[in-house]
Amino acid sequence: MSNKIILVIGGARSGKSRFSEELVLRADDTPFYIATAPVLDSEMAERVRLHRERRAAANWVTIEEERNLVNAVRLAAAEDAGAVLIDCLTLWINNLLYENPELSETEMTEKSRALVDELRLGPPFSVLVINEVGLGLVPELPLARRFRDLSGRCAQVIASEADEVYFMVAGIPQRIK
Amino acid sequence: MSNKIILVIGGARSGKSRFSEELVLRADDTPFYIATAPVLDSEMAERVRLHRERRAAANWVTIEEERNLVNAVRLAAAEDAGAVLIDCLTLWINNLLYENPELSETEMTEKSRALVDELRLGPPFSVLVINEVGLGLVPELPLARRFRDLSGRCAQVIASEADEVYFMVAGIPQRIK
Amino acid sequence: MSNKIILVIGGARSGKSRFSEELVLRADDTPFYIATAPVLDSEMAERVRLHRERRAAANWVTIEEERNLVNAVRLAAAEDAGAVLIDCLTLWINNLLYENPELSETEMTEKSRALVDELRLGPPFSVLVINEVGLGLVPELPLARRFRDLSGRCAQVIASEADEVYFMVAGIPQRIK
Repeated sequence: MSNKIILVIGGARSGKSRFSEELVLRADDTPFYIATAPVLDSEMAERVRLHRERRAAANWVTIEEERNLVNAVRLAAAEDAGAVLIDCLTLWINNLLYENPELSETEMTEKSRALVDELRLGPPFSVLVINEVGLGLVPELPLARRFRDLSGRCAQVIASEADEVYFMVAGIPQRIK
Repeated sequence: MSNKIILVIGGARSGKSRFSEELVLRADDTPFYIATAPVLDSEMAERVRLHRERRAAANWVTIEEERNLVNAVRLAAAEDAGAVLIDCLTLWINNLLYENPELSETEMTEKSRALVDELRLGPPFSVLVINEVGLGLVPELPLARRFRDLSGRCAQVIASEADEVYFMVAGIPQRIK
Repeated sequence: MSNKIILVIGGARSGKSRFSEELVLRADDTPFYIATAPVLDSEMAERVRLHRERRAAANWVTIEEERNLVNAVRLAAAEDAGAVLIDCLTLWINNLLYENPELSETEMTEKSRALVDELRLGPPFSVLVINEVGLGLVPELPLARRFRDLSGRCAQVIASEADEVYFMVAGIPQRIK
């Protein structure tokens, strides 16, 4: 039987992380957590702290990786991870774009496919979290538009390969695939 | 049998108010309307006027309350309200945040729970309306981010306690709980 | 049997155009494409180029019309179009608002109804694409708020008349009507 890949997409404070953590904890009792958040300021530090507190109760193994997710997945697989949570792809894309403001949709597609391919080879169960950021008005800044396009592209690529996709609204997961 | 609580969430001009009014009117023929909108400018006055016009045809009893919704629900219950519409929680949160820009997610959670608790004791049927505001890009201003987080938190708390939750898109209600 | 009208609504890069093109191509082998995009800058030129490339493989007949969609539908009907794709209503509303910044919701409703009426008389199968833009924070600029309200109003009018409505998330169509 093939590895299982799940995508969880939703807005800010829609309960994505909590739901995803539950999915992973149900799958394996020593889950791996791949964190993409760079701690740039006190606000982000507070968000990261809250996430860490919630995970402290369980036996999470944390891998911090801002850009090279393929490598992070390989690391988890080498440690025989039974289940992996990647939280979140939105910050991953943000980090990639910060490094290369010219990042194209074609490159984003390739990187997203490479990640899914690695997950198919690696841990038996994985959950990926991404924000839906495309349901507001068109942003004024070109870089913001590019980020939005890359994010939507990444979500489409992962969703088309995922076994299950959930759209979160008000903490409620709706299975859409 | 317990009181019924329904949450209606959706975007701008998604038909939230109209659908919610229909739900309440079907439940009781002398419905109560708890309005949270402060009339700050002509644009808001126009929006409020449109909502009032639509309600004029039916026998709505209106309670205007910008912040203390627990008290407003008590007032409605004291008048033996059969059904109550709270429209909307988004402006309630906005009003609370305007009064206290430091309002935390913990406080928001407490206030949301207190409201649901009062609704469980009070009118037999209630509908609460809230905007989904978290599906766009991360806002630049810290206060806007806080508002977005508080809004998402409030929606999660109410949704987890509600008997039914509807997500509105293009005027179409999708029942998600 | 009556003509069929389908509305596809979703965020940026949610796969709306690709899904809509597939629907139209399945319905008829010489589909008509009504394009509303004005080519104002190099970014838009690139987006239009990508859409054109995808359509080049099939036998699309393209009608470019920024504002008068009723006329564009009549043109398609006069050519015995079997299926029509209108992509997208968001740019149509943008073009109308650019011409008349005072465009009201009542006028938007009338224009949306006139379009649906023409589609009922015209081609046997039509798909309309619109962006959901109301699920972020309230925009600061009055014109942006008006655009958002007009967009939501248009989506509601078309959705209420449409035979099928799909909400796109991460490339996955969810049928909501």
